Amino acid sequence: MVDRSRSAERIERDIETLAGPHFTRSSDAIQRYAYTPEYRRTLDHFAGELRSLGFEVSEDPVGTFVARNRPPGESVFGIGSHCDSNRNGGKYDGTMGVATAVEVCRLNVEGGLDLPLQLISFLEEEGSGFGQMLLGSRIMLQRVTEEELRESFRALDDGRSFWEHAEEAGYEPARWRESIHVLDDLTGWIEMHIEQARVLQDTGNRIGLVHAIAGYVHADVIVHGRGDHAGATPMDLRLDPTTVLAETVLELERVARETGQGTVGTVGEIEVDPGLINAIASRVRFSLDIRGPVEEAYRGVAREVAAFAERAAEARGMRAEVRQRQALPATPLDERIVDALETAAKSTGEPYLRMHSGAAHDTMCVADRIPSAMVFVPCRDGISHHPAEDADPADAALAAGIILDAIAALR
Amino acid sequence: MVDRSRSAERIERDIETLAGPHFTRSSDAIQRYAYTPEYRRTLDHFAGELRSLGFEVSEDPVGTFVARNRPPGESVFGIGSHCDSNRNGGKYDGTMGVATAVEVCRLNVEGGLDLPLQLISFLEEEGSGFGQMLLGSRIMLQRVTEEELRESFRALDDGRSFWEHAEEAGYEPARWRESIHVLDDLTGWIEMHIEQARVLQDTGNRIGLVHAIAGYVHADVIVHGRGDHAGATPMDLRLDPTTVLAETVLELERVARETGQGTVGTVGEIEVDPGLINAIASRVRFSLDIRGPVEEAYRGVAREVAAFAERAAEARGMRAEVRQRQALPATPLDERIVDALETAAKSTGEPYLRMHSGAAHDTMCVADRIPSAMVFVPCRDGISHHPAEDADPADAALAAGIILDAIAALR
Repeated sequence: MVDRSRSAERIERDIETLAGPHFTRSSDAIQRYAYTPEYRRTLDHFAGELRSLGFEVSEDPVGTFVARNRPPGESVFGIGSHCDSNRNGGKYDGTMGVATAVEVCRLNVEGGLDLPLQLISFLEEEGSGFGQMLLGSRIMLQRVTEEELRESFRALDDGRSFWEHAEEAGYEPARWRESIHVLDDLTGWIEMHIEQARVLQDTGNRIGLVHAIAGYVHADVIVHGRGDHAGATPMDLRLDPTTVLAETVLELERVARETGQGTVGTVGEIEVDPGLINAIASRVRFSLDIRGPVEEAYRGVAREVAAFAERAAEARGMRAEVRQRQALPATPLDERIVDALETAAKSTGEPYLRMHSGAAHDTMCVADRIPSAMVFVPCRDGISHHPAEDADPADAALAAGIILDAIAALR
Repeated sequence: MVDRSRSAERIERDIETLAGPHFTRSSDAIQRYAYTPEYRRTLDHFAGELRSLGFEVSEDPVGTFVARNRPPGESVFGIGSHCDSNRNGGKYDGTMGVATAVEVCRLNVEGGLDLPLQLISFLEEEGSGFGQMLLGSRIMLQRVTEEELRESFRALDDGRSFWEHAEEAGYEPARWRESIHVLDDLTGWIEMHIEQARVLQDTGNRIGLVHAIAGYVHADVIVHGRGDHAGATPMDLRLDPTTVLAETVLELERVARETGQGTVGTVGEIEVDPGLINAIASRVRFSLDIRGPVEEAYRGVAREVAAFAERAAEARGMRAEVRQRQALPATPLDERIVDALETAAKSTGEPYLRMHSGAAHDTMCVADRIPSAMVFVPCRDGISHHPAEDADPADAALAAGIILDAIAALR
């Protein structure tokens, strides 16, 4: 039997240490990103812990952190997450996943299991350094171009290129394509992460077993109306695009609900032109964020809502254009690993939930090559990317035990 | 019989002259406001025309332009408008009304009528100089405070006070309260103005006889939702304030239509916080502009929509606050003057419409003391406050004849 309270204490100690002044650039929030001294010290902290557990520590050509308890060429099971933060971040996003993976390594030694493990801490998941989300795992999966690394990806702080910063920090960005070899020996991958939403809290579960990561469609709807005087234009002579916005917001809600299967839809940005209290808008732009784990379902909602907006505008004598910004396919995770996690979770007697992730994670990239799954723990009120972020180390300790048991069972 | 084509030519000549480089500060638009050389030259242009018609020209202590063909103390009928522009203005807003009033004075001489007239060109109707709409007529009606004139009202260009600018231009702002005497001898007042909306154009009328100026309620609705991750928060766990916005926009449209009596309602400003494509808004603020000529009707719509927004938020577990910014009562105009205008309009055989003004005008202030009415002429597509503003001098000529006939009939 695992001593969960000791695990919780150790995970908490790591998290609290890394919330200290040496490990964050801001005194009001966690702010930590690639190639900064604070990030370096964070990796060094984990390196020390892992070396004491008999792990070899290395970094790939751009700075992805890797620690393994078997020599290269031998099969290992991958665990980890990221330990950079967003610019106004909390203590738990990413870092709790790495701290929990380190705890898995401790339990592996203490329990005398000696499972072959490789811990990865991905570079720049949040994009705080260069404005590019999932940058490390995208580099690893060759989902970037050399031109982007050399030129387009530039530091938010000083505008210099990713390439220049990586070289200055002692890495060899010219060898970035070799980063893929980090995955060479992996037989599987499990990332633990805080949920960043409120499903686990609101359903009273301590553990989420993630069987898929949502894909999404990001689009803009632009409704062209006619700017007129708000006081002097009778209701029947108006071409007011805010009415099409209103109808579309409600239709998106209706269709997403009706479609179900985890599909969600959000209008998060609304821009009214000219945006004056006494002027009927000439134009409204609003964003659509439509996601879900079931490709067919969320893409159907996106299509239906786009067509609805066009029809709604037309019915009122206006015109709506729908412009897709980006679309990412859903990432199904590995059923065998999720089942192993479920068996392990069930045996703890603690409440757990099979669920999908609505947010993106490095595991989306890893899963392209390696059988993968994720484990979520609740975070208070779903608050994340904010200093008020809060999660319970006891849940992380529970996750550590479940992950270890699952890996053992998967051998 | 009035020679309307000659009137149209003279009105057009005045308008085109005043669109020339000496009379506007911008080469792309009409930009003319109090105490600038361009404004001075504009008043001087009209002064020259009016003196040649036998008028005495003067200015009140802050610079309101007054011209009369009878000595002080004798009754006169008031006509006029304003000749300042908004900062990106067109040639017709205000200026066409003054040019048409001057044409009424010409016709009065040429027709040998010798009606007692007083022309007024109000100061700073648009607020381009000091950011204060209807400033001249509000000063006249004592609807400002001395503190505002001395301190709070400051030039948009240099931040110096209204008071300082007025003194520098040679006026005596300390005597501002005497401005009210401009109205002393008036037996009535008619302001001609472009409609600034599309009712006349869209209904095929050349003349609008304005029997009321709309009052309004300006308010903000703030809906407090809960900011959550757009991808990771199921539809049923959301408190998305954009849905309350959507319902309220449609309800405002429905209730304004149902209420009728010229009531209109507009949501012109929408502010979403944080306003990110991948975040459910934590808060939405939107404006309400609800107007109409019938006090009871538009105030009823304002009350109903405010209550609806509160209920709609509550029904979804959120909270909406409604904050009134400003409310102005409707201004009924003088029936006897409107009837006289209608008789005159009817006798021309040209299509006219009794209507209300949705926009504010100096006549709102004048009507507080003097029986008043307004005459509108169409402007193309309702475009105003823009260099593309366009109106037909032939319509203004028609208005000039109607106004003259009405004044004659009202003696």
